[in-house]
Parts: sequence; C-alpha cells; structure tokens
Amino acid sequence: MKPVKVGLMGLGTVGTGVVRIVEGHQADLQSQVASPIEIAKILVKDASKSRSVVVDASKLTEDPWELVRDEEIDIIVEVMGGVGATKELLLEALERGKHIVTANKDLMALHGQEILAKAKEKGCDVFYEASVAGGIPIIRTLIEGFSSDRITKIMGIVNGTTNYILTKMSQEGADYQDVLKEAQALGYAEADPTSDVEGLDAARKMTILSTLGFRANVALEDVDVRGISAVTQEDIRYAHQLGCEIKLLGIAERQDDYISVSVQPTLVRRSHPIASVNGVFNAVYVHGEAVGETMFYGPGAGEMPTATSIVADLVAVVKNMKLGVNGRQSSLSYKEKKLKTDEQIASKYFMLLHVEDRAGVLMQIAQVFSKYDVSIESVMQPATPDQQGAQLIISTHAADKASMNAVQKAFEELPAVKTIKSVYRVEG
Amino acid sequence: MKPVKVGLMGLGTVGTGVVRIVEGHQADLQSQVASPIEIAKILVKDASKSRSVVVDASKLTEDPWELVRDEEIDIIVEVMGGVGATKELLLEALERGKHIVTANKDLMALHGQEILAKAKEKGCDVFYEASVAGGIPIIRTLIEGFSSDRITKIMGIVNGTTNYILTKMSQEGADYQDVLKEAQALGYAEADPTSDVEGLDAARKMTILSTLGFRANVALEDVDVRGISAVTQEDIRYAHQLGCEIKLLGIAERQDDYISVSVQPTLVRRSHPIASVNGVFNAVYVHGEAVGETMFYGPGAGEMPTATSIVADLVAVVKNMKLGVNGRQSSLSYKEKKLKTDEQIASKYFMLLHVEDRAGVLMQIAQVFSKYDVSIESVMQPATPDQQGAQLIISTHAADKASMNAVQKAFEELPAVKTIKSVYRVEG
Repeated sequence: MKPVKVGLMGLGTVGTGVVRIVEGHQADLQSQVASPIEIAKILVKDASKSRSVVVDASKLTEDPWELVRDEEIDIIVEVMGGVGATKELLLEALERGKHIVTANKDLMALHGQEILAKAKEKGCDVFYEASVAGGIPIIRTLIEGFSSDRITKIMGIVNGTTNYILTKMSQEGADYQDVLKEAQALGYAEADPTSDVEGLDAARKMTILSTLGFRANVALEDVDVRGISAVTQEDIRYAHQLGCEIKLLGIAERQDDYISVSVQPTLVRRSHPIASVNGVFNAVYVHGEAVGETMFYGPGAGEMPTATSIVADLVAVVKNMKLGVNGRQSSLSYKEKKLKTDEQIASKYFMLLHVEDRAGVLMQIAQVFSKYDVSIESVMQPATPDQQGAQLIISTHAADKASMNAVQKAFEELPAVKTIKSVYRVEG
Repeated sequence: MKPVKVGLMGLGTVGTGVVRIVEGHQADLQSQVASPIEIAKILVKDASKSRSVVVDASKLTEDPWELVRDEEIDIIVEVMGGVGATKELLLEALERGKHIVTANKDLMALHGQEILAKAKEKGCDVFYEASVAGGIPIIRTLIEGFSSDRITKIMGIVNGTTNYILTKMSQEGADYQDVLKEAQALGYAEADPTSDVEGLDAARKMTILSTLGFRANVALEDVDVRGISAVTQEDIRYAHQLGCEIKLLGIAERQDDYISVSVQPTLVRRSHPIASVNGVFNAVYVHGEAVGETMFYGPGAGEMPTATSIVADLVAVVKNMKLGVNGRQSSLSYKEKKLKTDEQIASKYFMLLHVEDRAGVLMQIAQVFSKYDVSIESVMQPATPDQQGAQLIISTHAADKASMNAVQKAFEELPAVKTIKSVYRVEG
C-alpha cells in the first residue's frame, strides 16, 4: 500500500521523539490507518550534525522549501518553532494542499486564525494538540469532548518551568532566585527565562485554550499577564497559613458571552484539585455549565509526551485523508469576541500590606475597602519582631478588578500604608 | 434546513438532561453541525406521568419499536438501560441504518463487540462516551488522544458511590455500614447497593476502558473483582499511618501484550494524584509508554454531566453524517487478548494479621514470606491494649499474585496466625 509521506520540520528533542514513535509504533499505527506512515524528508539546521536517532542521511535537508515544494509529501509536521518565516512556509504548504501538524504555540497564538482560515479554504487539516500542555489531549477535549456544553472557566497550569519553581519554593522554603538557578542547571529553565517566568509562554497557551473554549478569537494582547518573579517566600508562607498554594494560573472566564483571560500568580485553596499539581506537570481545569468541574493532568513538555500528541494528530490527519474529509472539522472560531471590562472581572483577593504599627491604622484600611465596596473576609496581623511597623494579611470576598485597583491606588496615597507588598487573586 | 431526527429511549434523569441540553444549546449546536437537532420521539415507561422537563406529549410513546421502525429517525439515543431486550432493539436499529449513542455500560461491557461489529457492517456509528465516568471524555481520549502511544496502565476511580463511602470513612472515621446508610438516604447509593459496593459496576466500566486502551476484547469475566464491603475503619487507620488512602481502584495493566484487569480496594500513596480524588468524583489515570502519567478528573454521574457526554457524541454522529463517514472510525478491538497468569501479575501488598503475641511468631511469619520469595518492605506492630494477641501490619515489595496467594494459604494453616484480617494491593 502507498505510504503516507510526512515532511518533518525540525529534528530537535520533539522531532526526534516523533521519529522514534512513528518508527517504533509503525505496526500499531498501520492497524489504525491502514497505510504505512513514512517520514520522507527532514528539515534540519545542520545536516552534518550527529543525532541521537538513526535517520537516513539522504532524507535530511537544510532547505525548508524542499519540503514545502515536494509534491510527494502529504503532511508537514512542524516542530522547529519560529513565527514569521514559519508562518510563510506553512501557508505555502497549505496553498499546495498539504496538511499541517504543529507544536508551535507562538505561531498558533499569534496567527492561528489566519492559518486555520487558509486551511479551511484549501480543505486541509491543521492540528496543534502538542502546542498546549504537551502530553495532555486538551485541545481535542475542548473541541469534541465539550462540544455540547458551554464552558464558563478554564484554569491552567500550562508552564512547567514556573510550576517547578513555585513547587520547590513551597516545599523547600527556597527563594525564587536560588530555585531559578537550580532549574536552569537542570535544564528546566532557559538561560534567558523571561518568556517562562514572566508568564508570556503561559499567555500564548491561554490564548489558544480560550479561543477554543469560548469559540471566539482571543488575541495575545487580550491576555492580562503577570509572572512569578516577584513572588516571595513570605507570600508563600502566608498563603500556607490560609490553606493555599501559590500557582501561576492562566484563568479564562466567560459570563453571558463576556470573557476575560489572564495569567498571574494566584493563591489556590488546597482543596482545589489544581493546587496539588506539582513539579513540571501541567493541568487544565475546565468548568462547563452542564458538566461542572473537570481536570486534565499530565506532562506539559518533554520529547516523548509532546511527540505522542503530534503523532496522535498525524493519525487523525491520515484517517481524514482515507475518509476524504480533511479540512472539514475546523477549529476556527465563530463567535464575536466581547471582552470584560475591569468592572466585570470579579474574584477574591489576598493582599499583604506593610503598615505603620499604631492605633487607628486598621480602621483607615477598612475605610478604604468600604469606600470601594470591597468586602473583607479576614485580616491577620502576624507577629513581625524584626520589622518596623506591622504586616497585614487581608483576604477579601469577591470584588471586581476596577475596585481593587482603586483600593490599591488609595493605599499608595495613604501615609499609614508603607508598602503594598503583594496582591494576588484567590481561587478554589 | 432538514433537521436531524433523534429517537430518545428513556426519559429518566439522564434523558431529561439530554432534552435540556439539546433544547437549551440549540443555537450553539447548530453552529457546529449546520442542522437543527430535533428530538422527534421519546420512549417512556408511562406516557401519562408528569415530567420535570416540558416535552410535547405527542412525541411520547411506550413502544420502543415505534422508534426503531421510524424511518425518519436518524439516531437512537439510548439511556434507558437494560441488556437483553435493549441489545435486540439496538441491533435492529443498526440493521435499519440508525446510529446509536448510548450511556449503557452494562450493554457495552457485555455485548460491546457484537454491537460494534454490526455497526461496522452497516456503516453506522456507535458512541458510548457516557457509559464510563459520566462527564469525563475518557473514551475519546483513549481512542484518539493516545492513538499513537502504547498504554501500559489504566487506574480508575469509576464508581462514585464507593468513592463517596470510602471518602467519608477516611475523613470522618465513620464505619462502612453507617456511611452506606447515609449514602442511601442521600440518593448516592441504591436500596440494593450490591452492584456498586461489590465492585460490579466498576468492573463493567473497566471492561470497556481496558478493551479500548489495549485494543483487545476484554470480557467482564476476565476482571478479578472485589468490593469494599469488608473495608474496616481499622484498615483505613493503618493505611493513613502508611501515608495512604484506601480507594476502590479498577486496575488494567499490560506488559508485553499480556494484560490483567481487576477491581479491588487498594492502598494508594497520598503522593499519587488519584489518592486525592474524593466524594462522588471519578478519575481515570492513564500511563502510556511515551506520554508517561496523565489523569482525567470529573463528575462520574449526574443528569447534566452525563447528558453533556451524550450530546457531544450526538454532535460527533451528526458531523459524521454531514461528512458521510459514519461507521468508519470504529472502536472495535483488533488485538488478540492474552491474559496474564497470577505469576505475571505483580504489585506491592499490605497485609494485616492478627497473630499470637509470643516470641518467635515474627520469625515464622518472615519464613513464610521468604519461602515464597516475597520480600518484606516493613513490619509494624501497633499497640493493641484491648485485644488478645498482636497485630502485624506488613508491607511488601512488588510480589506476584500467585506467591501472595501461597503466602495467604500458608498463614491459614499456621497456628501462630489467628486471622488474616486484610490483604490489599498498594499503588503509587
């Protein structure tokens, strides 16, 4: 039987995993799709480099257009990353009727709709399960598993690096900078960790998840992003006292078709299933109107988990080819996007204040909250022997973000408040 | 546009949920499948009964054949349960080219392959997402999400009733009988709870999951089943001392194409993600060779979660109808089933013995373990002031089941052992 031919763009960690699975599981794959799947050409940066996986040297090329223009190739698997040039290559591949499987979150977050529209026009599939939460099949779950429901909330731990750092800080009492260095030494964090620790990587993934979950085209710039670099050991200690862990959560919410998407360090009550997702693991919690609470947990990255998702997509494309239905089950969004204003974004908050240690201060603080209609759930004043002034840990009931901004602004101008040390959302 | 017509068999809790979702989300559904979906006929036991959902009385019938024989009906949604008569109805519906969506775990566990084979022959879809773990899209995850991987282990908390009972026993120190009565009063357990508490319901679900995960036709009688009715508060207390919870786990394992499937109360270390799945929630943990550890968590039952899965299946059938590809993505298994012998089934064990309180007893016990090559990890002898004799809590390293059976048999004949109080597998 004629093999289905794949052009693989990129032979780094994930590309190597794809080769391993396609070759190692060939018999299993064939019994599912009734055709051999052949990796016919592989784009590499340096064709002379030695590899951890055996590939036929004649398949290697350093010219991406060789794959795009090869009429024998049915499917492009893109695991090389990049945005601008990669987009041009993939659009041209679609133009020529090739299907795409990609792990490229940056590309899908920034240009997903353009690529999906071109695919629809040309009757091609574009699948991207591996772009979010590596081994967790969350994208097909959102598209198919919850097709009948109205998703109201998606909360994700979608960046393994920051979850590793926060887990270590929580479990070992270590400081952010020390854990970051350790993560870099172990290869869990990049030399320049900005994209991970400042929440940008998570924001791209939340753009993809919220676009799918709410079926409206959420853009990266719609996501309100804050990273973990300012999270202190003190914050974590107080979070523990409140029965919480601090997690970098992507939060996408919908009420009456108005949506908001954000990424920020968040206090999560330990009773919530996402609070116990530790280390480099990822998890996506989905709340649907009908289904209620669900959560999907697994490895967020790594050679084999990510490759598993890519090859599962590859199987889906080949099945569609056999059925002649490629490009028919598009994940293109069809709803108008309406963003919530700050007045519409409600949540509970945690606030840590450094204040003057004298009578009347708490009253002044309470007056500010009251003025902006933010209701206080609890106030703790821990003993702080070695500090001048006092610490106040305030938990609020649900309040809208505009009011909380107004409260913060008022505190900045209130002499009794020395520093607003931290403000976090609270979930669970 | 011509509506797709659905015949709904059963208007109990889940059937009512299906009506609510199909009517309430009609606009969303239409934008996905580009056709109205109409519930054209509904099979009920008593057409004169009043309902919590408004349905056109002219659609109600007490005769199932009216749905099966109605040439206008494209899809049968079966949520009435039953095995023998239901199977005949569904086979006839398939014979007449109708697609099936069912929540019937008993039917799929017992006659799944026969029904799937008939569906394949007639080019019809049979989808059954709701038959296992209500709102969790675990079936499509096993079929599609992990299509490229080799699944090596599936562990499931797939029965909400028993998980509720064990959670209460663990958290409140209550006894089995008391919690069972409470669960019955709350409607979480049936008047005759046998099917749930003796593990039969879980066994049916594990039959379905292991058949899908291993792509070999596992039969209900292949599942080794033990329920929770003998779990004592003492067991749970000692489990806690070992850092474990007791959960009713369905465990399906594969090594070199040899498989085993069982359901039994199991000690799960608290560090394992499935240990913290509490109350009526379900979870399915899946380990794949490439993907590693994943877990899917959500409501296992209930009107709306289950109905969500059914309507998601309905959407999939309608999409396939539009594409003309029904019956092409069959979940029929294709691998030869090879069951592990007891010599091949390995796990760690926990054993609670009531023994004579005199010198030399521990040595005799140790000799028995040694004779059958079972290596002991730890022995605890808690203080038992009010009992004659002593208690021994033994944890083993991984041992095969045949050896553990031999150990138990030897203890039954050893005068120093008064009673073998409990034996549990240990996971995590």
